[in-house]
Amino acid sequence: MNPTPNPQRRSEKSHRAILDAAMELCVEHGYGNVTVEAIAARAGVSKKTIYRWWPTKGAVVLEAFVELAGTATRFPDTGDVVADLRTQMTAVLANILSGPRASVYAGIIAETQHDPALARELRAQLLDPRVAAARDRLRLARDHGQLAPDADVEMVVDLLYGPLYYRLLLHLGPYPPARLRAHVAHVLGSFAPAPPASAAP
Amino acid sequence: MNPTPNPQRRSEKSHRAILDAAMELCVEHGYGNVTVEAIAARAGVSKKTIYRWWPTKGAVVLEAFVELAGTATRFPDTGDVVADLRTQMTAVLANILSGPRASVYAGIIAETQHDPALARELRAQLLDPRVAAARDRLRLARDHGQLAPDADVEMVVDLLYGPLYYRLLLHLGPYPPARLRAHVAHVLGSFAPAPPASAAP
Repeated sequence: MNPTPNPQRRSEKSHRAILDAAMELCVEHGYGNVTVEAIAARAGVSKKTIYRWWPTKGAVVLEAFVELAGTATRFPDTGDVVADLRTQMTAVLANILSGPRASVYAGIIAETQHDPALARELRAQLLDPRVAAARDRLRLARDHGQLAPDADVEMVVDLLYGPLYYRLLLHLGPYPPARLRAHVAHVLGSFAPAPPASAAP
Repeated sequence: MNPTPNPQRRSEKSHRAILDAAMELCVEHGYGNVTVEAIAARAGVSKKTIYRWWPTKGAVVLEAFVELAGTATRFPDTGDVVADLRTQMTAVLANILSGPRASVYAGIIAETQHDPALARELRAQLLDPRVAAARDRLRLARDHGQLAPDADVEMVVDLLYGPLYYRLLLHLGPYPPARLRAHVAHVLGSFAPAPPASAAP
């Protein structure tokens, strides 16, 4: 019952090994200190195999990072859109905007400043779908009267996520959880619907 | 009246020429494509001269950028702190967070992700003094009743500047001036003092 070697399966195994090796090495040594040679050696493949699938180191690490971010950045769906947003941002901060993975993410963002193709991939694979999901949720909140009818959802997303990236990339230190809570509450509160006139003193 | 050569003056001239060459080359070719060799050639000095004053390319470009940012990021003082802040942020956006200088700035910020010494210099030379100045102005606004007594000035600064850096570094496009105006008005409005009870309907 020894199966004959299956090229398809072997290829999938190599693909997986490369992504795992890329992420491990970046967490261990920092994005800037990792080479395609080192990724190939750790994954047990040739450099040629890596370059068959990805044009640059940045592209490999981005794919590994997107995979990892995928599970950490989902929106829960409890019916309370504001609570869901707070839960999602807490997970984003804990998983990809602080700690060792944040350094990998900062390394990818740094690389995009010199590599326009990688910048496009960063937007297409990671940012744009998540920004769209966040805006959809905020529109839903607006439709359900949890935000003011004229709330600018693009501005809400900028105000919610902008400061987290700013603090990471400018080395200002990540938000402690209590501060993140206050941040989300303040931003969403600033777009709250006006109270009904009868509730005024 | 031919003066004898003055080493002090020659040194100042070289220093100036290096900073000018560094900024010009970065604007022309992009931060990532500029080398210390090219800066030396344009400035008419040796590489050794550059390395006598700065440890890395990043350090040269940072000094040139800080000098340029100095005049563009000052706070005017009209007595209306909110208007002053809007003026300052408009100048910051126009001068260093959009256009060709923004690419140079993004290149420096990218480099700091791999160079902790440069990250410390970025904070010490550029960010920390400006963040401190912004917080001072906001405290003044609070003391004069233009912001709520419990306004968290650290949060105000994060919300004002964070989205500008986020949009620059994540390639989301700079704010058009009208959008920046709405942004500043929204953030400062969200920390406005509560209206006096007698003004309620």
